[in-house]
Amino acid sequence: MVRFVDVQNMSRWIASEGVEPILAGLVAYLEQDFRRWTNFERIPRIASHSVSGVIELMPTSDGETYGFKYVNGHPSNPGNGFQTVTAFGVLADVATGYPTFWTEMTLLTALRTAATSAMVASHLARPGSTTMAMIGTGSQSEFQALAFRTILGVKNLRIWDTDDAAMQKFVRNMAPLGFDITVASSAHDAVSGADIITTCTADKANATILTADMVVPGVHINAIGGDCPGKTELEAAILESGTVFVEHTAQTRIEGEIQQLAPDSPIIEFWEVLVGSAAGRISDEQVTIFDSVGFAIEDFSALRYLRDAVAVSDYSVDVDLIADPSDPKDLFALISAAELYSVR
Amino acid sequence: MVRFVDVQNMSRWIASEGVEPILAGLVAYLEQDFRRWTNFERIPRIASHSVSGVIELMPTSDGETYGFKYVNGHPSNPGNGFQTVTAFGVLADVATGYPTFWTEMTLLTALRTAATSAMVASHLARPGSTTMAMIGTGSQSEFQALAFRTILGVKNLRIWDTDDAAMQKFVRNMAPLGFDITVASSAHDAVSGADIITTCTADKANATILTADMVVPGVHINAIGGDCPGKTELEAAILESGTVFVEHTAQTRIEGEIQQLAPDSPIIEFWEVLVGSAAGRISDEQVTIFDSVGFAIEDFSALRYLRDAVAVSDYSVDVDLIADPSDPKDLFALISAAELYSVR
Repeated sequence: MVRFVDVQNMSRWIASEGVEPILAGLVAYLEQDFRRWTNFERIPRIASHSVSGVIELMPTSDGETYGFKYVNGHPSNPGNGFQTVTAFGVLADVATGYPTFWTEMTLLTALRTAATSAMVASHLARPGSTTMAMIGTGSQSEFQALAFRTILGVKNLRIWDTDDAAMQKFVRNMAPLGFDITVASSAHDAVSGADIITTCTADKANATILTADMVVPGVHINAIGGDCPGKTELEAAILESGTVFVEHTAQTRIEGEIQQLAPDSPIIEFWEVLVGSAAGRISDEQVTIFDSVGFAIEDFSALRYLRDAVAVSDYSVDVDLIADPSDPKDLFALISAAELYSVR
Repeated sequence: MVRFVDVQNMSRWIASEGVEPILAGLVAYLEQDFRRWTNFERIPRIASHSVSGVIELMPTSDGETYGFKYVNGHPSNPGNGFQTVTAFGVLADVATGYPTFWTEMTLLTALRTAATSAMVASHLARPGSTTMAMIGTGSQSEFQALAFRTILGVKNLRIWDTDDAAMQKFVRNMAPLGFDITVASSAHDAVSGADIITTCTADKANATILTADMVVPGVHINAIGGDCPGKTELEAAILESGTVFVEHTAQTRIEGEIQQLAPDSPIIEFWEVLVGSAAGRISDEQVTIFDSVGFAIEDFSALRYLRDAVAVSDYSVDVDLIADPSDPKDLFALISAAELYSVR
């Protein structure tokens, strides 16, 4: 049997535990796995592109546990009433190859993406950062806001989105939770006075959500939305003026903001900052940029965290996913057994 | 909602429809998809190797529907009471990226592998073939026997396995179904007088289950078990003396019997035989070899066949796998809704 978490159980679990404790727990698991980064299999995700979007498989393994996520990215989905990103994921036992854990990951991906952003910012943003500009207030935005408050103490938000209804939705969801929210009149207005800038838009295009004139010394940029070939958010000059941190170089060269740069442009893999083999922020004037595309190890951490939290709870159920006859060489017996069953 | 077929429902469906009608139906779907081979995305599967086996993801897409299979191969599993191969698979809608269908595929893989072997043999084996040698009588063997009888009319089987209990199991399962079965005293004995030789063993090793002196003119070899780097069954000389047919060249070069040959050794992709752009068997003396490793398009055909057969039946059930709030930009609402739910 495989333990399975469906959407309703995931929602119940998050509501019961609370988003912020879960984000803090996720950051702890993420840091553990980033610190042992080189123990993992690391390959760029396997993408199937179409005119409407992309479907990706993101596998990794630490030699004991194998995990993968299925995830799509379809920028025009919201216009048709669908989510831009949906996902599910699986853990399996490397020794037997048997899957052990299966879960919805649309909500879990929102949590892990926000937790990863906040973990990275907690090491790269200027100490004492209190104000974050958020450009893009879609599905991911509330999770980002809560993660940056939980991990960095950021309480002041300056938001901007071209979709006014999306901004109203953000305010409706977040204002009751104690944030000080300013609805800006433009992206330029939003970034004014911000210590941290999060770009989180969904257009599958080489957009320039953020231009070099909007970036002041010392800011940390958390660039979430550029995560596909031909899908970027930052003007290239920003990347050249700051220090770029990435997850897995080979994947980010294909998908990240740095697809705009030469293939040997200087970048730092963030795990190296964590283990001390590379410097993080070196001055208060430095612009730091997290060119985030999302990597399989982050999903592995999230799957591991969720499994540890719910596998023996009523937030998960058994599903009969493994055909496993008593004589392992007699798979055919399952059909004979079913034949008896259906006759009965 | 996603439609889901678990092991019990799969067993019930197979028992109710009958293995042979399903194999015939699968062959029809497989031929459809092999005939439009170049319409599909075709990449070698993504393998995660460990000391105990391999875990693989096998994606493909025809531009409208995306499918993938998770499958493991762990040769030492039966010694520990586990299946060598287990699998599950998913179909998704390319336009939205949403998964639509999810199923166990341990049984379905056994069916599709056998159906593919028989489809290929029906075009490559000598007309009038009546006798098949089967070397290896594990989980896949009964499905192979039924597929070759359904599609080619093969009724005489000469079996051999180093595990006597596995041979007894095969006879117990298949003799009541009207086969004429000879339990051979060796692999050499098994192939004597056979029109077709199926090798279907599980050792993860460069074994020589079949040597050149065992192969007589005109035979068709259905080589199933060599499907991993370092895992082959045939002596290289056999491949050099016959004509080798493969599924997807790039994957078979890595995983198939032809990993023993030079990377430019002559081979024919089987779909070309089907559409008439390459010759199949050209003489009664020719040795034809299907170097089968299993390709994603075959799983796609099997998933499509199963979905069409059971998606609106009680052999499948709805699972709540897609977090899909009424406002697609308000994923956070699912948690608030769950909060109310858990308070109630």
